[in-house]
Amino acid sequence: MKKILIIGAGLSTTSLINYLKDNSEEYNWKLTVGDYNLKRAQEKVNNHKNCEAIKFDIYNVEQKKQEIGKADLVVSMLPARMHIMVAETCLELNKDMVTASYVSNELKELNEQAKQKGLIFLNEVGVDPGIDHMSTMEVIDRVKSAGGEMLSFRSYTGGLVAQKYDNNPWNYKFTWNPRNVVLAGQGTAQIIVNGKYKYIPYHQLFKRTIRINVLDVGEFEGYSNRDSLAYRKIYGLDNIGTMARGTLRRPGFCKAWNLFVQLGLTEDTYTLEDSENMSYRDFINTYLRYEENICVEEKLCKYLDINPDSYPVYLLRWLGIFSEKKIGLKNATPAQILQQLLEEKWSLDAGDKDMLVMQHQFGYKIDGKVKTISSSMVYEGKDSKNTAMAITVGLPTAIATKMILTGKIKIKGVHIPVIKEIYEPILEELKEHGIEFIEEEI
Amino acid sequence: MKKILIIGAGLSTTSLINYLKDNSEEYNWKLTVGDYNLKRAQEKVNNHKNCEAIKFDIYNVEQKKQEIGKADLVVSMLPARMHIMVAETCLELNKDMVTASYVSNELKELNEQAKQKGLIFLNEVGVDPGIDHMSTMEVIDRVKSAGGEMLSFRSYTGGLVAQKYDNNPWNYKFTWNPRNVVLAGQGTAQIIVNGKYKYIPYHQLFKRTIRINVLDVGEFEGYSNRDSLAYRKIYGLDNIGTMARGTLRRPGFCKAWNLFVQLGLTEDTYTLEDSENMSYRDFINTYLRYEENICVEEKLCKYLDINPDSYPVYLLRWLGIFSEKKIGLKNATPAQILQQLLEEKWSLDAGDKDMLVMQHQFGYKIDGKVKTISSSMVYEGKDSKNTAMAITVGLPTAIATKMILTGKIKIKGVHIPVIKEIYEPILEELKEHGIEFIEEEI
Repeated sequence: MKKILIIGAGLSTTSLINYLKDNSEEYNWKLTVGDYNLKRAQEKVNNHKNCEAIKFDIYNVEQKKQEIGKADLVVSMLPARMHIMVAETCLELNKDMVTASYVSNELKELNEQAKQKGLIFLNEVGVDPGIDHMSTMEVIDRVKSAGGEMLSFRSYTGGLVAQKYDNNPWNYKFTWNPRNVVLAGQGTAQIIVNGKYKYIPYHQLFKRTIRINVLDVGEFEGYSNRDSLAYRKIYGLDNIGTMARGTLRRPGFCKAWNLFVQLGLTEDTYTLEDSENMSYRDFINTYLRYEENICVEEKLCKYLDINPDSYPVYLLRWLGIFSEKKIGLKNATPAQILQQLLEEKWSLDAGDKDMLVMQHQFGYKIDGKVKTISSSMVYEGKDSKNTAMAITVGLPTAIATKMILTGKIKIKGVHIPVIKEIYEPILEELKEHGIEFIEEEI
Repeated sequence: MKKILIIGAGLSTTSLINYLKDNSEEYNWKLTVGDYNLKRAQEKVNNHKNCEAIKFDIYNVEQKKQEIGKADLVVSMLPARMHIMVAETCLELNKDMVTASYVSNELKELNEQAKQKGLIFLNEVGVDPGIDHMSTMEVIDRVKSAGGEMLSFRSYTGGLVAQKYDNNPWNYKFTWNPRNVVLAGQGTAQIIVNGKYKYIPYHQLFKRTIRINVLDVGEFEGYSNRDSLAYRKIYGLDNIGTMARGTLRRPGFCKAWNLFVQLGLTEDTYTLEDSENMSYRDFINTYLRYEENICVEEKLCKYLDINPDSYPVYLLRWLGIFSEKKIGLKNATPAQILQQLLEEKWSLDAGDKDMLVMQHQFGYKIDGKVKTISSSMVYEGKDSKNTAMAITVGLPTAIATKMILTGKIKIKGVHIPVIKEIYEPILEELKEHGIEFIEEEI
């Protein structure tokens, strides 16, 4: 019998826990789901006979050692910064670990020790990061083993509302943490295009989009994510001339969102004086020049040099940014106020489903010919708990866990799924669950 | 006999040390000038009979205690973050302290202890901060004591090249730390105008300038400094409707500088790949879209939506930003590269003099009438060592030191010069040195 400890029972763990429960009989697993909120763990466990729920506090060192000590493998679904606290104990007590988060430098430093102890700490096996790595490396390794040379790589991912439920003019609803959506892109994006490095500061980011068509779900626009250059090394494409990674939105979104960025409404570094008693109209006015005898709408259009009849301005109006409604948030940052406004308008309605869209574009040279492959995935959520986001994060994490416990994944050390031994069996099983990539050659 | 320890012998200490030396005979002072670089201290001391130079290392705890222990008063001219290390020892050994830097929160927390021990830790007695506080409070206190009510306050300061030596098309040369000039304004400026809070993000800052005329030195433009709102409390103007502080440049500067901000060239948070082998032309191209068959100049104008024949574009060309010259800086940030380019073009020539320009604009109500005073100072440097910047920082610091040692300033605790007891004697003596404000009523 193998024991699996799952720490954290948040939104993204539904599919993970269900998959492990469903397979527990066949593989003789015993699951423990720990969360600081016991009720949340109990809901996920739902009285399954091979599964128990416990209250778990990562800061309780004694409990941490005791529970990790009882397990054969630990799946950490805690916030990313907390994985290291789990990893250190796993190392001490000789336990394998799986996470769906970006691997931190601290965690990478445990690589040699994990190897020596015969452990695997597998990270980034969710969707983004996770499925993106696996599906990318599957194509790159195939092209390379056929003698091809990679010339360019672009990859875009978006979590959006599914087409059928896409009924607002922004063509966007929150399908994941709204705060991350409001703050997305801050810093400087770094890409390389035909051998030229390109750095894109945040205030230019949403102007520098590209158009992308994905299978039968239509047109999108993509804006660049932070450091694409680092992925050259990760994907073994050190000398590639073009490398860009980004986020997908429906066409028109970025042009309107850019107006918020230009105003400064996505800032999260300071709080506004008297934000509680401001209206949204006051809030907007706070970012415009002081001028008498001119209304806020007109000032905004003049300031941002846009036509009052243009579609982006319609999108702003639709959100209610000019309304006299009170904000009512004390000591709020601009980003928090904007988020509150957006949550009223961009929340999923009952019955709405989300979708996960991913497209990789590969350019390569083989037998003297330049070729292009695009590899796309569209995955629609099942219901409000089994969202596309929860399934595409949870399922590969669960499959990876199974592959480690059953010995299909034998490699040791701190890893992300860019190695064939890891990605191949996971991608194969994801297909059975309808998560698969369609390739088109151009 | 009183002993004064001056820690730090950098650029801004020339006038400070000369003033204290010149007064040492009359007041029976013994000066010690300590610097990590002994030679620098020796140059400033210049074999004066009442003054000795020592090598001083602030991280050498034993030396710190020994030297501070021997002094009656310590003037810290170290970088601002190091003052706390001096202050703690001054508190322990019962010594007064003077600095020309912004008082940190850590330092403020020593207020009660300093008071109890009968010590004064006087900060912000340079020019900005320093002369700005003193000259502002002189007017505010006068208006208030005459029964007036303050309605608005705006204050602008600039360190520029003196008119006679102003011979480049930017009408600007570095008269102080170039790095601070390149990074100036980052963050969000906060002001209040007629009761409306206004937040100005960095990427809008250099578009939101106002025009200002100063005495006989002509026209300037001012952009806002970071947190002007905090000054309401500091100046006892808690309920004032208009409060803004800013920096002065010659007209046209900000429009051209804004192009650098829009491109992202003032960023200092990441280094560029292969910056060493890039030309300045490559550097600029790195911030523009990838496009074939269009030159960098044309791309830049298209990207920033500016006329290629406009004056701001002429200013960029004049700096050589499109040149094929190699940068030669390893792992440089964009701000470092820009600074290197600017230092070639904006350095003071031999014989050039700088000037310090300050203007406060006060609006107030008295006897039912609304009145306006503008109070302006223009001060020109004497030579390359006795610059306007060095004199206006060093002289008030020196005078404050004298006032404390001679008992003219008796107040105890952690202070800045916003109290009549402090600013009155200092302003009076500054006048004798030609540093004075001219008031105009409008």
